[in-house]
Amino acid sequence: MARVYNFSAGPACLPECVLKEAAEEMLDYNGTGMSVMEMSHRSKDFENILHDAEQTLRELMNIPDNYKVLFLQGGAHQQFSAVPMNLVKNGIADYIITGQWAKKAAAEAEKYLTVNRIASSADKTFTYIPDCSDLPIDEDADYVYICQNNTIYGTKFPELPNTKGKILVSDVSSMFLSEPVDVEKYGVIYAGVQKNAGPAGLVVAIIREDLIRDDLDPKVPTMLKWKTQADADSLYNTPNCWAIYICGKVFRWVKEMGGLEAMKEYNEKKAKILYDFLDSSELFKGTVEKGSRSLMNVPFVTGDEDLDAKFIKEATAAGFKNLKGHRTVGGMRASIYNAMPIEGVTALVEFMKEFEANNK
Amino acid sequence: MARVYNFSAGPACLPECVLKEAAEEMLDYNGTGMSVMEMSHRSKDFENILHDAEQTLRELMNIPDNYKVLFLQGGAHQQFSAVPMNLVKNGIADYIITGQWAKKAAAEAEKYLTVNRIASSADKTFTYIPDCSDLPIDEDADYVYICQNNTIYGTKFPELPNTKGKILVSDVSSMFLSEPVDVEKYGVIYAGVQKNAGPAGLVVAIIREDLIRDDLDPKVPTMLKWKTQADADSLYNTPNCWAIYICGKVFRWVKEMGGLEAMKEYNEKKAKILYDFLDSSELFKGTVEKGSRSLMNVPFVTGDEDLDAKFIKEATAAGFKNLKGHRTVGGMRASIYNAMPIEGVTALVEFMKEFEANNK
Repeated sequence: MARVYNFSAGPACLPECVLKEAAEEMLDYNGTGMSVMEMSHRSKDFENILHDAEQTLRELMNIPDNYKVLFLQGGAHQQFSAVPMNLVKNGIADYIITGQWAKKAAAEAEKYLTVNRIASSADKTFTYIPDCSDLPIDEDADYVYICQNNTIYGTKFPELPNTKGKILVSDVSSMFLSEPVDVEKYGVIYAGVQKNAGPAGLVVAIIREDLIRDDLDPKVPTMLKWKTQADADSLYNTPNCWAIYICGKVFRWVKEMGGLEAMKEYNEKKAKILYDFLDSSELFKGTVEKGSRSLMNVPFVTGDEDLDAKFIKEATAAGFKNLKGHRTVGGMRASIYNAMPIEGVTALVEFMKEFEANNK
Repeated sequence: MARVYNFSAGPACLPECVLKEAAEEMLDYNGTGMSVMEMSHRSKDFENILHDAEQTLRELMNIPDNYKVLFLQGGAHQQFSAVPMNLVKNGIADYIITGQWAKKAAAEAEKYLTVNRIASSADKTFTYIPDCSDLPIDEDADYVYICQNNTIYGTKFPELPNTKGKILVSDVSSMFLSEPVDVEKYGVIYAGVQKNAGPAGLVVAIIREDLIRDDLDPKVPTMLKWKTQADADSLYNTPNCWAIYICGKVFRWVKEMGGLEAMKEYNEKKAKILYDFLDSSELFKGTVEKGSRSLMNVPFVTGDEDLDAKFIKEATAAGFKNLKGHRTVGGMRASIYNAMPIEGVTALVEFMKEFEANNK
């Protein structure tokens, strides 16, 4: 079968050139006579892979020197515990609830501190981002937590919340490397890479150095303490070497594409094609308020569940894969991450037009 | 460059046929039009990969139905915390200290319960396994913990300890699938797969169902609670899909090789070639007591550090890679896991003979 257009929300499509390189290097990486999967994580060859990946990322995101970059295991879910465990001081944190992941992060944090849910868009099934310009930030809040792009609901913070001087912690999994970020505005940025940068099983965490502390509750597991991996440059134990290797290639690809400014421009162009069609269609409707729309995840519906199912079935048969919406939302969702070519979005819109014409 | 003989202690050599298949399937797995790295973990295709991997493993190890098989992240290190967190009841556990990993596991466990170190071979730099036939097992011990094969020191338990009815927990990372195991003798068996079964970033944990509990300390992170993944068949969150895929291929390869009995026979044959040479050589000496020798990791020395360095340098140049011993032991170490062909061991011994003749 030919390659398909894969609209999966994650794990998701990767640049074809990266896959080709990985295949070519499978039996012999760079003249070593072995695969990256067979390489000691303490070997010079792998250390170069790790170092290059970090340096390319630092360059792409313009990460200041006083921020550490960690390559961690356990997924964003593990950071739901690690964030409060590492940041707790006064014992209070403020969470902005814009979807399932922020909700889960808040519930997990409640094991370790008092959580204030200072804003939420649950009233309208998370179809918008609340106004965060003047929220009741707790004077003693150890941090303010957001999930900046909501994969399931297709929303993105149009601007960062006003944290009134408190540390901002952001889960950027589904928007990682999709546009420039001002790292200095954050205390902690983290992303599961399986949406926009690599295979599953790796989290990139970018943490301001003064937040990497040693004076934690003695019961914090060694592997959840950021300092463990920060002190060892992510090599305290064997990391997910393969994922770091693939991410390094994707980081270089983003750089070759022109970096994050160019990536943003490309992503806006792609998203506009789809949103413009949704705004003009009489059959398909986007589910998200205009000011809160994500560049990466675009949910839409026909308003008729049977027709949704018919659309998904026919689209799948035509090579547009994984368009089914999240089970908690229904309808359709097109995830159009960095690696989705503009041709994929154009072809999808053409297919939707045809479907609309045939189902009047 | 041609493929080399890779004696790395882990990540380590993989069967060449597995690498070839992975390369061939990189752009289009099984007619899906995508790489396994691009596949939703909730897709039918990936669920089949996961299910097949588990079933093949169950068959290979003859795992009884009342044991769960979990595919986890975080490495063996994370299980150092998870084991006490999930098994603590009376608040006491017995640890047998046969090397650095058991030592680290015990130190981590001490955060959560009282650890009795009931035996140790630290007195002779862990070059033997202590007699474990009649140890002072605590009446209230929640479990007895061992690291069954010690990668760094090249020892293996010649027989399981007499736990006097207490639950046995074993880290089998560096001997996973190298020989048959009687699963029923254990409460928990776990292995980082990066030594004998796949790429880094995946732990396989085989846990008796009655030990998977819900009544844990409420501060146990959700991701460290075995029940979280047990209830979700390892899909509570996105797992290390790529590593599961590669492991599935390695499991099938082991099956094609004749299963664990045949694997053991092959491994014994390989190890005998090397040990027989070490026992007859006047230059090279094995460092481990005969009754405690590992089939997988074979440390040896010349007794002269400069000569060790010369040997490693010349061996590396001749295509025998990663023979340097662990930094805490020095000398050399040949890890001869399942995927190391007998030709690699024979060639190494020939090379050692030649080196010996040239350095009298």
